[in-house]
Amino acid sequence: MKPIVVRFKAREHQCEIGVGAGLAQNLGHHIRRLLPSAQRIAIISNDTVFGLFGENLADSLRKSRFTVREWLMREGERHKNLRTLEQVLLFLSAFELTRTDAVLSLGGGVVGDLAGLAAALHLRGVALLHVPTTLLAQIDASIGGKTAVNTGAGKNLIGAFHQPAAVWIDPLTLKTLPPRELTSGWCEAVKQGAAGNSQLFRDTYGFLRSRSHSTGRAIPSILLLMSHCKFKAGIVSRDEREETSRSDHKSRRILNFGHTTAHALETATGYRRFRHGEAVGHGMVVAGEISARLGLLQRSELELLRDAVDLCGPLPRADNLDAAAIIEVIARDKKRASGEMKWVLLERLGRARIVDGKEISASLLRASLKAGLGRTG
Amino acid sequence: MKPIVVRFKAREHQCEIGVGAGLAQNLGHHIRRLLPSAQRIAIISNDTVFGLFGENLADSLRKSRFTVREWLMREGERHKNLRTLEQVLLFLSAFELTRTDAVLSLGGGVVGDLAGLAAALHLRGVALLHVPTTLLAQIDASIGGKTAVNTGAGKNLIGAFHQPAAVWIDPLTLKTLPPRELTSGWCEAVKQGAAGNSQLFRDTYGFLRSRSHSTGRAIPSILLLMSHCKFKAGIVSRDEREETSRSDHKSRRILNFGHTTAHALETATGYRRFRHGEAVGHGMVVAGEISARLGLLQRSELELLRDAVDLCGPLPRADNLDAAAIIEVIARDKKRASGEMKWVLLERLGRARIVDGKEISASLLRASLKAGLGRTG
Repeated sequence: MKPIVVRFKAREHQCEIGVGAGLAQNLGHHIRRLLPSAQRIAIISNDTVFGLFGENLADSLRKSRFTVREWLMREGERHKNLRTLEQVLLFLSAFELTRTDAVLSLGGGVVGDLAGLAAALHLRGVALLHVPTTLLAQIDASIGGKTAVNTGAGKNLIGAFHQPAAVWIDPLTLKTLPPRELTSGWCEAVKQGAAGNSQLFRDTYGFLRSRSHSTGRAIPSILLLMSHCKFKAGIVSRDEREETSRSDHKSRRILNFGHTTAHALETATGYRRFRHGEAVGHGMVVAGEISARLGLLQRSELELLRDAVDLCGPLPRADNLDAAAIIEVIARDKKRASGEMKWVLLERLGRARIVDGKEISASLLRASLKAGLGRTG
Repeated sequence: MKPIVVRFKAREHQCEIGVGAGLAQNLGHHIRRLLPSAQRIAIISNDTVFGLFGENLADSLRKSRFTVREWLMREGERHKNLRTLEQVLLFLSAFELTRTDAVLSLGGGVVGDLAGLAAALHLRGVALLHVPTTLLAQIDASIGGKTAVNTGAGKNLIGAFHQPAAVWIDPLTLKTLPPRELTSGWCEAVKQGAAGNSQLFRDTYGFLRSRSHSTGRAIPSILLLMSHCKFKAGIVSRDEREETSRSDHKSRRILNFGHTTAHALETATGYRRFRHGEAVGHGMVVAGEISARLGLLQRSELELLRDAVDLCGPLPRADNLDAAAIIEVIARDKKRASGEMKWVLLERLGRARIVDGKEISASLLRASLKAGLGRTG
């Protein structure tokens, strides 16, 4: 008997990204315009961030006739787990948040990932608004709809794609950011340029160079923030779900440049030594070394990449780690990916090439790790 | 500064529904055709159902070169919770299920809801295949992508829309189904016809009439199963997310016909007395009573609806429940929905009308409950 085929109408959706100084504390009318019939806004944040910006934000929402309640998580990646998710979900139920209301995340990537997944799951999905307060979250994590929590089996293994209705980016929130968080964000900024857009790389590099007296403490201009958001938005709008079938130089997967080694560094050190962006800083140089040794990337471009990473700020040492342990984690990840692990390499700054893991020999990997991780900031 | 607007390309997706006797034990080549590059299939089921059909199904998958592993949940709605979900997710991680592999649910609505949510969340979404083995799941729950688990705050409050890639329906699995499960499924069949398609109502009624010697034990014909699947598929394909803005007679919301009272009956009895479909059986008659008392529905049509529900099989009594308690639950649900609760009523058999809760007076509701619940099967 012939099967019945159900076709689901495609759903267009869009996300608004606003950038402006002072925006984070003044969002009431923006949200009212976006969600005319919403009654409740649940703010998900942590103590530190809410203490800095929360009350003013909540006041602004109340002035626009929203009922506001906040839920504050404990800080740190290790609290981004199923237990915490359950607590947020019970909070949303107790707050009686309906399908026409919204969840707003105020904080960095951890808060955004958790709040995003809660918004995806509460009543099978409610509107999500991001107010990212770290550089990494502003230019990267808040854009593109990836949400997740960690389990005992690994990081971000559980999650959903749930696009925010809006992302509001306020560079003033970066003024109170710890230097290492800024460094971490700048590393991701270098990554976005290096992996996908040569102009963006040059703009980022130029900006960092011009502020090199304040290494690791430079606050990006609004223009540069917008360039990064546009870049990230462009990639994710064309490959929302990071399709496994794609390996072209415009696929979302290129944003994993530096991440194979970064993930191994984080795992090998139990997520204690490196912030994510810091690990990506090291990982990019390793991927650059591999690219150069394979003859894909000119040495001069690799040196430029090294310099850009240096300008992001000091990174925790990686040269005193056991190379064998790092290689083991990489091999384990490869096994998990059913032997199909891909490396994101560079043809030049601004153009990635996705290469099958088996094209990289063990000795090449070892040499590249040695050369790439020999930086102590 | 003007916001950046990110537009996400709409993603078409489709679901294949196959109906056939013996299909459930013979799916290997169907799945291989659908998922040519998948390596692993995780079967989610329960002891009873897996004991009946699991080994043959797994054998068929192995013959088509899939690596198969099963995870069996404890039976019952109360195990459809976050704890069980976490266990399934850890199982999927331990099985190293990748983004090109699939989760297959073998069982009724509870198994399907849980497996569906796990498939939605593992690595932000993997392919989902349903092999529903109850009548209710075959004609209703497995089609349309609703997945969920319960929390302390209520039923199905946490979930996702995650469309299955395929649903395979085998009427032979119904032969071992307990009579109450069949009754429950037939009630949902009556609901689908009554709320949305007069021809489907007549076909269902006619079939039940012709088998009325075997009340509550009638196995539907393949043709009738297909009609129900087509109906459900038609509704959900035009309103996948059950948009809150819609209240027309083709919106997905009409499938909640009978559910306002059903939910109150289930809650008031702690989910112990009624199977879901049985509660819907009572709920439809109550909604029919309201419709008739509001002058929407002719009395003769209401009598036909009553007769159809009777033919589904005996329902647990509802006439000895405290009407005040039931009304209280309905009022609480209404409050939760921000005072905007809608009732699905009938203009005639096959055409629903969605009516605002405030158009139904307390005395009308009380009288309708009294008249509607006065059936003991």
